[in-house]
Order: sequence, then structure tokens, then C-alpha cells
Amino acid sequence: MVNSKKVNAAILIIGNEILSGRTQDTNTSALAIWLNSIGVKVKEVRVIPDIEQIIIDTLNVLRKSSNYVFTTGGIGPTHDDITAESVSKAFGLKYEVNKEAFKILEEYYSPGEFNDGRQKMAMMPENAKLILNPTSGAPGFIVDNVFCLPGVPSILKSMLGGLKNRIVGGLPIISYSISLKTVESEIANNITKIQNDNMDVEIGSYPFFHAGKLGVSIVLRSENQSKIDTCNSQILEFVKEKKIQIVDR
Amino acid sequence: MVNSKKVNAAILIIGNEILSGRTQDTNTSALAIWLNSIGVKVKEVRVIPDIEQIIIDTLNVLRKSSNYVFTTGGIGPTHDDITAESVSKAFGLKYEVNKEAFKILEEYYSPGEFNDGRQKMAMMPENAKLILNPTSGAPGFIVDNVFCLPGVPSILKSMLGGLKNRIVGGLPIISYSISLKTVESEIANNITKIQNDNMDVEIGSYPFFHAGKLGVSIVLRSENQSKIDTCNSQILEFVKEKKIQIVDR
Repeated sequence: MVNSKKVNAAILIIGNEILSGRTQDTNTSALAIWLNSIGVKVKEVRVIPDIEQIIIDTLNVLRKSSNYVFTTGGIGPTHDDITAESVSKAFGLKYEVNKEAFKILEEYYSPGEFNDGRQKMAMMPENAKLILNPTSGAPGFIVDNVFCLPGVPSILKSMLGGLKNRIVGGLPIISYSISLKTVESEIANNITKIQNDNMDVEIGSYPFFHAGKLGVSIVLRSENQSKIDTCNSQILEFVKEKKIQIVDR
Repeated sequence: MVNSKKVNAAILIIGNEILSGRTQDTNTSALAIWLNSIGVKVKEVRVIPDIEQIIIDTLNVLRKSSNYVFTTGGIGPTHDDITAESVSKAFGLKYEVNKEAFKILEEYYSPGEFNDGRQKMAMMPENAKLILNPTSGAPGFIVDNVFCLPGVPSILKSMLGGLKNRIVGGLPIISYSISLKTVESEIANNITKIQNDNMDVEIGSYPFFHAGKLGVSIVLRSENQSKIDTCNSQILEFVKEKKIQIVDR
């Protein structure tokens, strides 16, 4: 389904391990790229600790300010996995055994291995819809506009495919990038002018130092290919005029 | 300087490139590890776009709710570098040429190369204190409890050393990790009990799948080494009892 309106999302990363620096978050980037491809723009990301009241309060802000919220982390079997219970409280819903999830997990584990900790992963807000997990069995879940996913990046990624029909996005956000052998200050005035003439296109300027090469990547983002093309031709004009070399990044 | 109270910080990542997924943020992790080492705990991270009003509003929330705020990104020479002006507005301060920064930049660049774009990097909130940049010249700045750093990770890291005396932290946060050849659900009850008995220690449980090895890392965090030791010995008790193998991670 495609919506003609702009559709946005917030990402809520739940986990002390990100705030301590122990773990480098990579889910933001994976989610953002996937969301862009289905026409959903990420407007905000928050990283918060495994503290119930903070999860509840933050979720209650984000689920009202954004079309969709994606949470990551805190849906495993241990004491610090409190996302499902916190989401239940944020919505004022019962936190109870989801029968479908229980059945999936019961079948996933060998007889005798479906222990207490694993049974906890079937506890969810009442009437939650499941997000199937082709990697490690334990499903994520959806309540209203809130999608709860695990923190382990490989598992999270494997679950996105099944979500496409649950999200009504807008037009896909197209991103076009051109890299120049120059420094930012050399082209700042040109890019400022082009941005002012093309307010519908988000223009970013990013210096890079990569494999001995130094340069600037200009990134153009919009739902509209022809607007990107217009910007790009204006960039090519000053690039030619100033004899700047276009390079691979 | 060391404070006996707990000291916290928020990190504010400013940049469309993180929200679009194009760039993977690594500054959170670098800042968090460094802050922990000087006794400052990161309580929240937010990632927001290059939009002035959002920067102002978010900064005005975070600078009141946290002891320190660290911003990254948006202090370069281009049109999308609006952090300095936004911070000025958030504090109700003039946005003007910082003479000291101007002099540093003037000396850093060869004659004739200190162009308009580069001069923009000397524009800061009035009376801002500088954060020196040993890598690429352009300084960051401090206003009250807000520290503004660049987005390029290698440059940001090189600037942290000079900041130590500007921050009054608490006791360094000690982190101890033990990795076990088990699955989370197998030890969930034990860890829950240990957490309940040791509320002052933050205990995290993180499954890993690494180089063919599968296991769980238990992370203990506290300002107090003896409390970590107590927790650890309780862990070693059930590890021995359940004949779980301790592994390298």
C-alpha cells in the first residue's frame, strides 16, 4: 500500500548496553534504510535504559508524535528484558500469555527445553499481533502503531521482510549521491544556493577521508526523482565551472 | 575532579545522515566509553535532523534534564551545519564571531585559503569556550553544560583528551564481564535472583553468536568494585553448580 502523504517513524533503542558504549548500535541504520525503501522517513531516534518508567514515558511520547514506532531490544528471556511488560503498561493493556506465540515457541523448542525463561517470551500485551521470527523462533509483536523487535541485529533484519504489509508507507525516499574531489568550504556557497532554490530536496554535505582519498559527498534526498535530477544538474554546472573532479566514493 | 554524586549526560546526535541510515553512528559508543571512564553515565541519546527548531527544543529539554549534554555534528562550513546558530538561539545568546576561534583558523589555513565557508566555523554563541581540535583546526565549543563536537568520529575522538578538566565526573563506572557457554533461558532465574539481591549493580545479559561460538555475556556495572565482586562470586556459584563452562568472548 502506498500513501500520498508523508509517513514518518521513530526508533526507540532500549538497552543499557548501547548507553554504556559496550555495544555499537547498528539497528538504527538497518531499520532506517529499510523504512526509506517503503516510504517511511525516520524523524527521531532515542536510546534509553532498561528502566520501566522511562520506557513507558518515552513510548507514550513517541507513539503520539510519529506515525510508527519501532522498538529494539528487551524481548528476550532474562530479567532485563522488560519491553513487553512496559509496552503493556504504556497502553494500559494486560500483560499475558499470547497463545499463538506460546504455540510457536512450544513447537520451536525440543521437548523439555521450553523452560520458564523461554515461556516468558510468549508474554505480551493482550491482543498483540505477532511478528514472525525465521531465525530464532521468538516472535516480536505489534500493538497499534508500535512494532517491537529484538536487539540482535541479524535476528531483527530477518524479521523485517514479514512486516511490509503491516506498514502503509508513502512514496519511497530516493537518495542520490555524488562525490567530489574538493573540500566543503570550497563549495559551501554553491550548495547553499542550490538548497535555497530547491527546498523540497534534502541536501547533505559530508566530508570523507577514505583509503587515502579526501573529498565531499553531496547527498540528495527526495520522494521526487525529477527534483533530484534538477538539483544534480545544478551541481554539475558549478562542478564544471570550478573544474572539480568527480570521484568514486 | 571527582564528585561523590552520580553524574549523568545526554548525547545529542545531529544529522540527517544518521536518520537516513547512510551513516552508521559510532560517536555514541566512543563518547559513552570515555564518559564512563571519567565517572559520567549516559542516560539518554537522541538522534535528530538538521532542523533548527528541533535542535533548539531538544537541547532545551536535555540541558535541563542532564548534568551534561554532548552534541555531535553540524559545526562544519556548509549550509546544513546549523548547530552553533541553533545553540545560540536555545540559550538566547548572540551568534557571533569568536575571536579566539577566528585566530586559530586564520593561522591554521594557508594565506588565501581562509575563505567564507571556513570563516563560518568561527561563528559561535557569544562567550563560548573553545574545545581545541588537534586534527583539523576548527574548534568545538562549550556553553554552560553543553559541549558541541564535530560529527567526524576520528576528529571527535582527538578532541576528548582536552576536555577532561572541563567535566566534573563522579566515580568511574566499572564494568566487568563474564561469558558463559549457555543460553539465556538456562540462567535467567539465577540472574534474576542475583539482580534482586544486588540492586546497586546493573546486570546485563547479552547472548552472542561469534566465530561459531554461542553463549551469553553477563555484564556487571557499578561504581563500586566490591559490589561487583559480590555479584561475580554469586554468579560463579551457580556456574559451578550447573557445570556451565566459562568462555572467552
